[in-house]
Amino acid sequence: MTAFFDRLADRIAAVDSVVSVGLDPDQDRLPDEVRDADLPRWEFNRRVVDATAEHAAAFKPNAAFYEDPDGWRALEKTVEHARDRGVPVLLDAKRADIGNTSRQYAKALDSVDAITLNPFLGRDALAPFLDREDAGCFLLCRTSNPGGADVQELELADGDLVYERVADLAAEWSAAGHGNVGLVVGATTPDELRAVRERVPDLPFLVPGVGAQGGDVEAAATCATASNGAGLVNSTRGIIFAGEESDAPFDEAAAAAARDLKERLNEYR
Amino acid sequence: MTAFFDRLADRIAAVDSVVSVGLDPDQDRLPDEVRDADLPRWEFNRRVVDATAEHAAAFKPNAAFYEDPDGWRALEKTVEHARDRGVPVLLDAKRADIGNTSRQYAKALDSVDAITLNPFLGRDALAPFLDREDAGCFLLCRTSNPGGADVQELELADGDLVYERVADLAAEWSAAGHGNVGLVVGATTPDELRAVRERVPDLPFLVPGVGAQGGDVEAAATCATASNGAGLVNSTRGIIFAGEESDAPFDEAAAAAARDLKERLNEYR
Repeated sequence: MTAFFDRLADRIAAVDSVVSVGLDPDQDRLPDEVRDADLPRWEFNRRVVDATAEHAAAFKPNAAFYEDPDGWRALEKTVEHARDRGVPVLLDAKRADIGNTSRQYAKALDSVDAITLNPFLGRDALAPFLDREDAGCFLLCRTSNPGGADVQELELADGDLVYERVADLAAEWSAAGHGNVGLVVGATTPDELRAVRERVPDLPFLVPGVGAQGGDVEAAATCATASNGAGLVNSTRGIIFAGEESDAPFDEAAAAAARDLKERLNEYR
Repeated sequence: MTAFFDRLADRIAAVDSVVSVGLDPDQDRLPDEVRDADLPRWEFNRRVVDATAEHAAAFKPNAAFYEDPDGWRALEKTVEHARDRGVPVLLDAKRADIGNTSRQYAKALDSVDAITLNPFLGRDALAPFLDREDAGCFLLCRTSNPGGADVQELELADGDLVYERVADLAAEWSAAGHGNVGLVVGATTPDELRAVRERVPDLPFLVPGVGAQGGDVEAAATCATASNGAGLVNSTRGIIFAGEESDAPFDEAAAAAARDLKERLNEYR
């Protein structure tokens, strides 16, 4: 199979979009129209996927919203449906564990195209993921929450900050391996986003924070993609729950929000 | 409800044991006797829980081994059964995410007593867990894998290492909050384990690595418990798969292994 970042770059070119549509079907916010379905989260996701696929470079379900028996069934169906539509799926699970536990978690890559990982446990903990040549691995670098600074912006003895060192480590691990490592860098800290882009020009970014979190769209658009043409700007609630602020059906509202974000990003790309 | 670390200290006193029994029912290693059950992982766990409860200060299922529809059913039944037996349950999930996703993950604390967390995203990401007064939160500090050094042992500008700073942050967050924060510090790096114990005498530790990973039993026994009497030393494969090296039924072999670890630890406590 072609490497993930090549598949992603092809997809971006084909749909002229770097938009990642987050699929977090919060059960407290599902519209009435899907509540009576056998699996409400799957029914919701199916309609969002169908409505937004033409604007989506990828779909990004967050594992937190599927962690119960019905949830895992809904997630399996969602992943299969998105991939049947030709859209890569990035599982936002922020995994990090060790040894045989990490190998167990890495089985998720049998069914999705890419995953998010937490670098705190180091290279060997991530090996079962990084060793999958055809999969994409986005390592958390500078996250979009204010508290991200607590650990990520600690200053090291050589003057670098922890998140800068993580970017360097990710670049090393990618170059020494399968070139399949990217970074998660939030749009809510645009100066840091631009600095990391300069530091590691070859690593694709997943940039969250442009929707409900109010991040910088221009910085996201100009920094997300690496030299290889791969990279993503994610919005979740701003797309999938756009219907809450609209009289249109929720899937039509989601499609309009995804198209709108695509066009705003494309102004700067 | 009494705070988790008080409940744990009571349990440790009642069974004279700091042993945490890891429940990672790797489907490739389940004994033949449970393979025909409706839910093999639940049948396996039920028998391990029944056999080892008298030696267990806590049970620690790792979420990685339950991430599918049947798995979540098996986990729910396991947690309920362990708690019915009066044994606290620590979910080893190494969670860290932001905002509403973190709140979603924190719902796990409705059914378990404590959880492991990854500190890389900072205080605000962990708030939905830390804010639960009655729950225990074990933050990863120095993990038991060799690659743990990649990020955790980076030297900071003031000479501290990252994992030392994490220990300090955990102590601050606990003192400013509900006194419900502990640390995960591996027995495979006993010098670091002893140093962290001196640094933060009031934080209970979860010490992994004494079983299959070959960590230092004496250091684990002397360092696990904090000034409040709470702390755990975990073994997983060394207990639950002890039957692979034995002619005894798997649950009897697990009970013998749990008792043996308890006694080895109690020599030093």
